[in-house]
Amino acid sequence: MTARQPALEKRVELLDTTLRDGAQAEGISFSVRDKLAIVQTLDALGIPLIEAGNPGSNPKDLEFFEAIRGLRLAQATIAAFGATRRPGRDAAADPQVQSLLSAGTPAVVIFGKSWSLHVAEVLKTTPEENLAMIRDTVRLARSRVDRVIFDAEHFFDGWRADPDYALETLAAAAEAGADTVCLCDTNGGRFPDEVAAGTVAAIARLAGRAAVGMHPHNDSGVAVANALAAVDAGARHVQGTLAGFGERCGNVNLSAVLANLQLKRGYRCIPDEALARLTGAVRRVAEVANIILPDDLPYVGRKAFAHKAGMHMDGVHKCSASFEHVAPDVVGNARRFLMSEVAGRSAVLERIRRIDPAVQKSDPVVETVVARLKALEQEGYQFEGADASFDLLIRKALGTYQPLFELEHFRILSERPIRVDCGAFALIKIRVGGQSEITAEEGDGPVNAMDRSLRKALERFYPTLAEARLTDYKVRVLNGNAATEATVRVLIESTDGREVWSTVGVSTDIIEASWKALVDSIEYKLIRDLEAKAGRGA
Amino acid sequence: MTARQPALEKRVELLDTTLRDGAQAEGISFSVRDKLAIVQTLDALGIPLIEAGNPGSNPKDLEFFEAIRGLRLAQATIAAFGATRRPGRDAAADPQVQSLLSAGTPAVVIFGKSWSLHVAEVLKTTPEENLAMIRDTVRLARSRVDRVIFDAEHFFDGWRADPDYALETLAAAAEAGADTVCLCDTNGGRFPDEVAAGTVAAIARLAGRAAVGMHPHNDSGVAVANALAAVDAGARHVQGTLAGFGERCGNVNLSAVLANLQLKRGYRCIPDEALARLTGAVRRVAEVANIILPDDLPYVGRKAFAHKAGMHMDGVHKCSASFEHVAPDVVGNARRFLMSEVAGRSAVLERIRRIDPAVQKSDPVVETVVARLKALEQEGYQFEGADASFDLLIRKALGTYQPLFELEHFRILSERPIRVDCGAFALIKIRVGGQSEITAEEGDGPVNAMDRSLRKALERFYPTLAEARLTDYKVRVLNGNAATEATVRVLIESTDGREVWSTVGVSTDIIEASWKALVDSIEYKLIRDLEAKAGRGA
Repeated sequence: MTARQPALEKRVELLDTTLRDGAQAEGISFSVRDKLAIVQTLDALGIPLIEAGNPGSNPKDLEFFEAIRGLRLAQATIAAFGATRRPGRDAAADPQVQSLLSAGTPAVVIFGKSWSLHVAEVLKTTPEENLAMIRDTVRLARSRVDRVIFDAEHFFDGWRADPDYALETLAAAAEAGADTVCLCDTNGGRFPDEVAAGTVAAIARLAGRAAVGMHPHNDSGVAVANALAAVDAGARHVQGTLAGFGERCGNVNLSAVLANLQLKRGYRCIPDEALARLTGAVRRVAEVANIILPDDLPYVGRKAFAHKAGMHMDGVHKCSASFEHVAPDVVGNARRFLMSEVAGRSAVLERIRRIDPAVQKSDPVVETVVARLKALEQEGYQFEGADASFDLLIRKALGTYQPLFELEHFRILSERPIRVDCGAFALIKIRVGGQSEITAEEGDGPVNAMDRSLRKALERFYPTLAEARLTDYKVRVLNGNAATEATVRVLIESTDGREVWSTVGVSTDIIEASWKALVDSIEYKLIRDLEAKAGRGA
Repeated sequence: MTARQPALEKRVELLDTTLRDGAQAEGISFSVRDKLAIVQTLDALGIPLIEAGNPGSNPKDLEFFEAIRGLRLAQATIAAFGATRRPGRDAAADPQVQSLLSAGTPAVVIFGKSWSLHVAEVLKTTPEENLAMIRDTVRLARSRVDRVIFDAEHFFDGWRADPDYALETLAAAAEAGADTVCLCDTNGGRFPDEVAAGTVAAIARLAGRAAVGMHPHNDSGVAVANALAAVDAGARHVQGTLAGFGERCGNVNLSAVLANLQLKRGYRCIPDEALARLTGAVRRVAEVANIILPDDLPYVGRKAFAHKAGMHMDGVHKCSASFEHVAPDVVGNARRFLMSEVAGRSAVLERIRRIDPAVQKSDPVVETVVARLKALEQEGYQFEGADASFDLLIRKALGTYQPLFELEHFRILSERPIRVDCGAFALIKIRVGGQSEITAEEGDGPVNAMDRSLRKALERFYPTLAEARLTDYKVRVLNGNAATEATVRVLIESTDGREVWSTVGVSTDIIEASWKALVDSIEYKLIRDLEAKAGRGA
């Protein structure tokens, strides 16, 4: 798929800072358990360096560094992170430096100032004292730790303002024993041409005494390109976060950097066989961090290989390279054809044929499904993330669908103060064939009570329902400005341990939207079971 | 703030394709009304060219092109979009070309194939016929329309595979009368160095007969850098979408492109005075498109100038350029200091002093607030987006808070089938001072019923409450894997026409989480009113 396939003898070392710089992102807060899970995910992917905060900054970090010593890693090295000593102090007596070294990690990252503006305005010290702070701290660390990486904060801004001084800070770190000097675009304001020029200057100044790295931020939207520009200019170390999150507009997205470098530029960043685990690893990190991964994330996003335009779908069918820059499975992602009003009849036909292969393009059912799709999209439905609901829509159009149960009545009660150990009750009466069942359940909130009562009522008729459970429940408010009267879309993901399916419901009432998605989920499960029993299951 | 401030004599023309390529994004579906609203937003921002789909592709598009003729625009030109004629047809007799020209727009964009692979595999025609298709279609369009822009689909892939042929397609379009030839990285797989080289080759081949543009996609995460590289190489036209959305990983984000070019590279893209409207325009487009704008979008995202690390906050206080690449107000955005456990005591102190300026750093109330913040964050609260709830938390710690009402009881009832024109009822009993009030309301769903009944009960005691209304209601499921039993966080935004405030509530029960956020919202309003009355209002 990729045209260049050189031997990957050139290496670029990656340092993931999800646990340190990534934790600066709004909305991110890691427990010790979360941090250990992320370390294991990064280690399994083959990321060689994992930066993990300052051991002394809070008790949670200290607990992490104790726990990590007990964790058996396949290949990754853990690095603690901290600042140079304060002005006018002895490095060995500086509590911050002491705490940095206290964790006994095999590597440390020490950051210091490279921008004279910061030295004067933020540190409020002299340029000479700042150089001494870098030298003293790096030297002390190097006497205790195998690898010392120096992060030159604001290097590119500093290099523009006062190039000699910025380069001098790098030389000070290298002379004191740092094996890698990392050039930081801390404010994320620089462009690839500036990064390339600064990197070339740094490499020339260091003359081989230390390797050069780059730490990009995305405030100008060019962080990935900045990392590539630095590597093109000779940098061999890149710092970022696997899913791209970090303070403000984020750190550079390491998943895109490594896929670009390894698939298209001939550099090895992780083992070749690990590349197919990339999408899974990024999604795992996002899950632990409890962030919603942007769907359009390069290479690993849910939409990264999703085709909606009818023309693009046709093109991909004819020749996948025609509309895909790399094959999705190379990075562990998958191609998707989206159902929507612009999808075109051929995509709808393909989905209909999965249920009834005999249907022809001219069959009026195709038009029926297309029209129903458009009408429901107008109401706020989206089937792009709800394949099982779309499957049921097709079955209803084909006339093969028969309702497996009917709702006679439900009533849900929420009250405060709570009188018993439960805030919500649901009463439900359903009918299956000629038989009625009435029952009740309690739950954590009205939706949970409804879910539990419906399953309880149905399990008598459909025992396989006990295998199914909801694994995700998402609420999207469609027109936020209407506040609590807004239309909401509920997406439910379910599994029975063999299959995973998604369903959707829309209403101004969250109870009703949840009810619709829930009914679709249960019906899909039951229909699939009946088909499997009849030997028609896929 | 920006170091380079050259005279902006150089222009780069922007074409926004939100209505065409942007509509290919998963989850995007525009009504005619939506499209008109987006055109007005782009026009007011000063985007000169707006691409708006194919007039004949569906009835909604035709309706739009009719409506747009009645809209008075300040400066923008509307362009229709369509393909070259089909192989072996007469251009004037090709229904697709006829429909493209039927709208009578002052500009058209015609796309054609520049990659020999596509000519052979997708079009299944000869290279010569493809050139004739481009020439015939452009020439016909040029005889009817003032401006014809040729989009060279897959130009960069084609140029790599067969440079002479790719360049020949451009020359064919220019000779036939296209005034601009736009080089597309349709699959988003190319890097800035490749874009620069291809652009230079295109400019040389065209020898001034047409202007050169660039149409980047973000599949490799370098779309913004690719646009900049093309401009550096001599391109003077960029196609993208203002908020960056589009098929797969999106089109290039035009807001970042224009801010970068205009603030840092000395090109004029929109009028200088419009730059401060950029953030508002992007948010408006996202609102109309009904997408949640990524918080970390460069320049315009909600987090783009948000500082969480205590150290960065201190730095920004000392010198804003020290941690910001541009001043947020230049692009109409705002700086934010986030409250969180890593925010540090000084940020908390600053917030306390807004309520009680006399509080000193050593006051035990600072520690109380920090501890409460940490404990609530553990439960799933986040105050970064809920300033009013944080304000109340401080007042409670200061001991100045007195409850303005007490809940005695509420009961909410949802049922199906609906017996009256309403799915949910709420009964509520509250106490204010020595007096009780009991009342009931109906609503669109349980949360809306609760909201309405609480306000109804309180308005007798607090008439100013009638001024306040909810403007946004967001639900975030915190631990999706627990499905309907999951913890949910509700964020509510309210306004009384003068101030906008945000509050938060967390619970496993969506009713309870909403109740907490709602009570905070009402209390905040009432406390602010009481303070304003006492002459202490800010």
